[in-house]
Amino acid sequence: MKRYRNGEIWDFEHEMPVVAVGSRDVILGLDGGTTSTVCICMPMIPFSDPLPEPPPVLARAVAGCSNHNSVGEAAARETLELVMADALSKSGSNRYAVRAVCLAVSGVNHPTDQQRILNWLRDIFPSHVGLYVQNDAVAALASGTLGKLHGCVLIAGTGTIAYGFTEDGREARAAGAGPVLGDWGSGYGIAAQALTAVIKAYDGRGPLTLLTSSILKRLGLSSPDELIGWTYADPSWARIAALVPVVISCAEAGDEVANRILYDSVLELASSVKAVVQRLGLCGEDGNGKFPLVMVGGVLEANRRWDIGKEVIKCISKDYPGALAIRPKVEPAVGAALLAWNFFMKESLKKALKS
Amino acid sequence: MKRYRNGEIWDFEHEMPVVAVGSRDVILGLDGGTTSTVCICMPMIPFSDPLPEPPPVLARAVAGCSNHNSVGEAAARETLELVMADALSKSGSNRYAVRAVCLAVSGVNHPTDQQRILNWLRDIFPSHVGLYVQNDAVAALASGTLGKLHGCVLIAGTGTIAYGFTEDGREARAAGAGPVLGDWGSGYGIAAQALTAVIKAYDGRGPLTLLTSSILKRLGLSSPDELIGWTYADPSWARIAALVPVVISCAEAGDEVANRILYDSVLELASSVKAVVQRLGLCGEDGNGKFPLVMVGGVLEANRRWDIGKEVIKCISKDYPGALAIRPKVEPAVGAALLAWNFFMKESLKKALKS
Repeated sequence: MKRYRNGEIWDFEHEMPVVAVGSRDVILGLDGGTTSTVCICMPMIPFSDPLPEPPPVLARAVAGCSNHNSVGEAAARETLELVMADALSKSGSNRYAVRAVCLAVSGVNHPTDQQRILNWLRDIFPSHVGLYVQNDAVAALASGTLGKLHGCVLIAGTGTIAYGFTEDGREARAAGAGPVLGDWGSGYGIAAQALTAVIKAYDGRGPLTLLTSSILKRLGLSSPDELIGWTYADPSWARIAALVPVVISCAEAGDEVANRILYDSVLELASSVKAVVQRLGLCGEDGNGKFPLVMVGGVLEANRRWDIGKEVIKCISKDYPGALAIRPKVEPAVGAALLAWNFFMKESLKKALKS
Repeated sequence: MKRYRNGEIWDFEHEMPVVAVGSRDVILGLDGGTTSTVCICMPMIPFSDPLPEPPPVLARAVAGCSNHNSVGEAAARETLELVMADALSKSGSNRYAVRAVCLAVSGVNHPTDQQRILNWLRDIFPSHVGLYVQNDAVAALASGTLGKLHGCVLIAGTGTIAYGFTEDGREARAAGAGPVLGDWGSGYGIAAQALTAVIKAYDGRGPLTLLTSSILKRLGLSSPDELIGWTYADPSWARIAALVPVVISCAEAGDEVANRILYDSVLELASSVKAVVQRLGLCGEDGNGKFPLVMVGGVLEANRRWDIGKEVIKCISKDYPGALAIRPKVEPAVGAALLAWNFFMKESLKKALKS
C-alpha cells in the first residue's frame, strides 16, 4: 500500500477553480465495512425542501477495508481520508464545500472508538463542518428510512447484527458479536452449520445430506476429510459464508438437513430483532405499534425460492404485527449521507432557535 | 528458536561410552500435540515377558508444538528430533540402542502425512529400527489399553475426537474436525457456548445467567461488551477453552444455562463415541459386547462434582452396556511406547515365522 505524506491526499484541491462559499455545498456519507468502504458525495439540500427520492448523488468512491480492528488505526484512517478525497475530487468539489460528514464504520462499538475517529476528522475539516461517527449498522437503517433514525435494521451478510433506535434517541443492538460469540443466523453461521452437517454425515454422527456432494463439488474436493484442511487454510469468514447459496439450493431441492439449518438461522435472526424491539418498546404499549424494519445483506436478499428474509419477517410479524419490512433501494453510504444531512439540520435549527 | 545444523542435534552421542549392541535396547514413544510434545524412553521388554504395570520409564523429555499444520513441516520435524535426542541423552542411551519408535502426533490424518514423517524418520534411525507413525488419539487409546489397539478412545480437551479400532485392524473416527466443523463437545465448544450465553443474556436474546458475572470476573472485564474485543484479540482455541472450569462451577451452583451447556456437550461427546462404536460394530452383534472405552483429556477429568466424563459414560452405557470405561493411569506418550513395542513384536514374530 502506498503511504501518503502529511496532507498529500488533499493536493488535488490546489488545482481546483475557486468557488464562492455556499454556492455548491455538499455532504459526505461513508459506509465502511470489513470488505470495502464507500463514500457518497451529495449536494446539500436546503432544509426547507423535501428530500428528493431517490436522493441526488454527485459522486461515489470506493476503497478497501476501514475497520480499525482488522487493519489497524493508521491504515483505516488513511483509507477513509483517501476515499473522501476521491469522492470530493470526482464531484469537482473540495473540503471547503463540505457542510457535514457522517462516517458509518464497522468496528465502532464504544464512545471511545467514536471520539478517536472524531478527533482526527477534526484535523481534516474546517471547524464549522458537522462531523458524525456511527456504527455501519446505523447507515444501513438510514438507507431504508431515508435518514430517519427510527425502527430496527437487521443486517445479515457474512456477519449479522440487529440495531434499533427510538424516536427519542434511545438505541439497542443484538448479535453482531462474531461467529465465536453466537452469530448463528449469519452467512458464516449458516455455512459453518452446513460444513458441520457434512462432517457429521461422514463420520456417522448425523443423517446423510445432499450438502455433502453439493459442497464438495463447489469446492472441488473429493472427500469430506479434505474439508478440514480447506476450512482452516484461511481464517476469512467471508470465504466460508460464500457457501450460503449452496445451502439454499440444497434446501430448495428438499434436503431436510439444509432446511433445518435455514429454519434455525431464521429463528436466530428473528430473535435478534425481537430482542431489540422488546428492549426499546418499538412496538408500543399494546405490542401492535408500527415501526420500520429495514432488511439488509446478502442472506436476506429476496432472489430465491427459499427466501430467508421473508421467513424472518413472517416470524417477527407473529409477535409484532406492526413491523413494516423495508428492503432499501439505496446503499448504506447514501443512508450515511442522509444521516449527516439530518443531524446537521437538527443542530443548525437548535442553534438558530438559541440565537 | 535456535536452528540446528544438519546432524548437530545428535552430537551428544559422540561423548557416550560405547555399549555392546543389544545390551540395553530401548523403545521411544512420542505424543505430539498442539501445545506440547512428550517423548518417553522405555527399556526394551523381552517378548516372552508379561508387560510390567506400571510400564518402566527410563527418561521423559518435553518440547513445544509438533503439529505440522500449526508450525510447519521443518519446525515440527526439528521439535520431534530434539525431543527424541533429549530423551535418549537423559537415559544415557543413543540411536543405536533404539529398537522401535512410535510417533503419535496430532495433525496426522492421511496416509500421505504418515509417509512424509516416516521418510524423514528413516534418515535419522538405522534401517533395522521399527518406525510407526500414528495420530495422537491412537497413543491415548493405547495409554488406557496398555498398548493394545482395540476399543474406542474419547479425547476431550481443547478439542475433541473419538477414535476406535477393532481387533482385526479396522479403524474409525468421529469429530476431531475443529471448532468450525462442529466439535461442540470440546473444551473450546463448551466455553464458546458459555461466552455466547453471556452475550445473549446481555442483548436480550437469552435468559440471565450466573456465567455473566463469573466469566467477567475471571477475565477481569467490566462489561459483556468487552468480551468481543477479548475473544478476537487472540485466535488461540486453548485460551477460550480455559474457561471450562468457570462453566462447571456455575453449573454446580445450579445455573440452568451452564447446566444446559454441559448436558449438550455430554450428548455431543457421547454421539462421537456411539458413531465409532456403531461403525466398527465394537459392541458385537447383539449390542452387548464388551469393549474398552478410554477417556482422556481435561474435560473428562473426574475431579469435580459435575463430572462430564461420568455423564458421558452413563449416556453411552444406555445404548452400549458393554462399554468398559478406563481412565488411563499413564500418559499418552507411554501409550505410544507400548504401541511401538507391540507393533515391533508382531513384525518380529511374523519375520521369525517366515524364516
